[in-house]
Amino acid sequence: MFNKETYIQRRRMLKERVGSGRLLFLGNDQAPMNYADNTYSFRQDSTFLYYFGLDCEGLAAIIDIDDDREIIFGNDPTIDDIVWMGTQPPLAEKAAHVGVSETLPLNKLGDFLKGQQIHYLPPYRGEHQVKLFEWLGIPPAAQAAGASISFIRAVVDMRNHKTTEEIAEIDKAVDVSVAMHVAMMRMVHPGIHETEVRAAVTAIAQQSGGDISFPVIATTHGQTLHNHGYIHTAQEGEMFLLDAGAEVASHYCGDLSSTCPVGKKFDERQRTVFDICLRAHRAAVAMLAPGIPFRDVHRKACTTIAEGMKSIGLMKGDTSDAVEAGAHALFFPCGVGHMMGLDVHDMENLGEVWVGYDGQPKSTLFGIKSLRLARPLEPGFVFTIEPGIYFIPELIDRWRAEGRHKEFLCYDAIDRWRHVGGLRNEEDYLITADGCRRLGTQYKPMTPEEMEEMRG
Amino acid sequence: MFNKETYIQRRRMLKERVGSGRLLFLGNDQAPMNYADNTYSFRQDSTFLYYFGLDCEGLAAIIDIDDDREIIFGNDPTIDDIVWMGTQPPLAEKAAHVGVSETLPLNKLGDFLKGQQIHYLPPYRGEHQVKLFEWLGIPPAAQAAGASISFIRAVVDMRNHKTTEEIAEIDKAVDVSVAMHVAMMRMVHPGIHETEVRAAVTAIAQQSGGDISFPVIATTHGQTLHNHGYIHTAQEGEMFLLDAGAEVASHYCGDLSSTCPVGKKFDERQRTVFDICLRAHRAAVAMLAPGIPFRDVHRKACTTIAEGMKSIGLMKGDTSDAVEAGAHALFFPCGVGHMMGLDVHDMENLGEVWVGYDGQPKSTLFGIKSLRLARPLEPGFVFTIEPGIYFIPELIDRWRAEGRHKEFLCYDAIDRWRHVGGLRNEEDYLITADGCRRLGTQYKPMTPEEMEEMRG
Repeated sequence: MFNKETYIQRRRMLKERVGSGRLLFLGNDQAPMNYADNTYSFRQDSTFLYYFGLDCEGLAAIIDIDDDREIIFGNDPTIDDIVWMGTQPPLAEKAAHVGVSETLPLNKLGDFLKGQQIHYLPPYRGEHQVKLFEWLGIPPAAQAAGASISFIRAVVDMRNHKTTEEIAEIDKAVDVSVAMHVAMMRMVHPGIHETEVRAAVTAIAQQSGGDISFPVIATTHGQTLHNHGYIHTAQEGEMFLLDAGAEVASHYCGDLSSTCPVGKKFDERQRTVFDICLRAHRAAVAMLAPGIPFRDVHRKACTTIAEGMKSIGLMKGDTSDAVEAGAHALFFPCGVGHMMGLDVHDMENLGEVWVGYDGQPKSTLFGIKSLRLARPLEPGFVFTIEPGIYFIPELIDRWRAEGRHKEFLCYDAIDRWRHVGGLRNEEDYLITADGCRRLGTQYKPMTPEEMEEMRG
Repeated sequence: MFNKETYIQRRRMLKERVGSGRLLFLGNDQAPMNYADNTYSFRQDSTFLYYFGLDCEGLAAIIDIDDDREIIFGNDPTIDDIVWMGTQPPLAEKAAHVGVSETLPLNKLGDFLKGQQIHYLPPYRGEHQVKLFEWLGIPPAAQAAGASISFIRAVVDMRNHKTTEEIAEIDKAVDVSVAMHVAMMRMVHPGIHETEVRAAVTAIAQQSGGDISFPVIATTHGQTLHNHGYIHTAQEGEMFLLDAGAEVASHYCGDLSSTCPVGKKFDERQRTVFDICLRAHRAAVAMLAPGIPFRDVHRKACTTIAEGMKSIGLMKGDTSDAVEAGAHALFFPCGVGHMMGLDVHDMENLGEVWVGYDGQPKSTLFGIKSLRLARPLEPGFVFTIEPGIYFIPELIDRWRAEGRHKEFLCYDAIDRWRHVGGLRNEEDYLITADGCRRLGTQYKPMTPEEMEEMRG
């Protein structure tokens, strides 16, 4: 938790931006696994954390801009809570730590909201939907449409611009994430099971006093972009892809990816694809500066990949036309990066169209529809750079059968590469006043030579 | 997953027991952490797993007893699903693996249920409440009361009696759990942080191909019964309590507790309390056999603890009267065990009054109100044995101020022990035709001597 002045200042700025009305903040409850009291690790809602700092369940808050009141709703611990869950300070004491002097029992919230026009954010858990139904009377199916755009835009604009104290936390999270990736590079070998890598990197995140920031992707089948099964034993000749990050105790995130050979060396095709991907990575990073639309950074990565694919005979024709049409998306069906902060895809629940597009429409074209960030970059923006190259047999077969983009794609040649798999390497960047800075104080191996040296 | 005959047989038996009507089974969805697509590890609903076996999200099922139909509702993977989440068989193929030949798209379920009398189980996730509202039109606040008692009782009666193939899975889960505890005993030392132990034992559960079966309790503050914070550094002279278990890939659980000295040896008071607790443990285990009410097993543990407390001057008066009044609950405020199976507190979501009390009322007296299992034991029952002794300063102070049970509690003496902390040791047992068997094939150290040897 930051000093209470941080939270007071954030709420003050929010009130100025929204201007008037009553803002409702839903804290998260414990998330049940297989019955109510068997819960996953508690994760507070990030917007609640940002404005109210309190990292415990059972809370909600109101900012009444017109009456200039800030109230945290929650219940004081009972003796049963103390016996089972330990000593806790009363709510008023917790609230004082974040500069809030008014607290009320949670069962007063329904009355407080009755008959009022309430600004709320889009719900993303069933528990939120149940609360909005009980407290505001809005049926679940109608809730998303009723979320407050002015509230969303004010939160997005503030959380998109990271402050010095936030960046220091992200640096810590990235450093833990680097340690997770270095451990992977050292431990992978023929015969290791994916679940062993998942377990080891999760342990590093937890040992740091935090946890993983998203489900670990640890796989020899990197062509599946978000592979959450851990079912394969690594074989000589394959590549191993880790996409994993830590969140530190303050809940700021890191998000890195690395792909290394299961054996000591990449084979020739893997090395070729790795080099193309690295060129795309460097070309993207070279553009990062205030004012540059991230859409252009993405496009640069796409054209670099398409050029590379042409150089090895897997694509043909005019590169710019191919990328415009989306042909490269056979190999790179996602975006080159996304905002990162308290959420690893920062504020995804508030809508990418606001976070990454400033309200401009998103494309629906396969590939670029998955680009989460497109707007011009501004100092304080924090995001990932993660070009990848993937050979997805089902996608190749489907496109080929449809004759899709056959003026740009050399399907016979592609078929000979279809078992190369997938690779991705990823770093985290901050936009500064005059350029960018790679986040974290530790370097993660990025070149094939550095990778192979770790594997030696 | 078991052979499909297992699931066919289970559903057949369920239909016979409920007799008539339409039974609704809600599979679980992915559980969001901080936005919809950043999810915790997927955990299927245990009753869905028990009858339908399929361990993936987005499913629901109907058993229509009157029309003799079994239908799994869900959606086939799209190409986007394959790109992001990997190749998956179509639903009909998955359903065939569990002996179900009829499948329908999920959006057909609402129509299917319309205007019908539906038996459903109590919801325990917000997502369930939203579904029951959308599909059955029942507001969240009214759903628990509308759950089907005949459906609950039939499920409970079946799941309470573990079969040979289930017991084999539980043995595996307990063995992984033993490995977690042995690791703790070996790694704890002055200066270790609680989070390091949590991380290490979680990694062992994950390396086995499964995961933890409930949030790890790894703490030097064992007097807090479910301590989920990991905030302390272990000090010489303290005890370290681990309560942790694995669930294997089939999702059957283990649940063990161990308390060992942070240094090499227990001190005199710790050793005294440990010995009392071990006597209670052995006295409870010695009673386990078909026909014995578990309430009596719990009472035996309570009286053994109360006798021990008398022997060291912390309690006084008639032991039987003291236990009847609940005075011992100052030191042992919970139950001596609970059912275990696909859930670590098996079927807690269906209601302990059915699972552990066969519909008989539970006591509301502090201490015994937390006893989850009381009914006469039957062959196939699987449960924990976990007496503990806890010195909870807030509880001592509150009871003393109230003069509570002062005819049985020697508060001046208790005050001198108030910093001993808490300890618990736990094993898992099966009721056999003529007695009981400790579950797992590996032995977990249980005596002070064995514990100290591990610490050497």
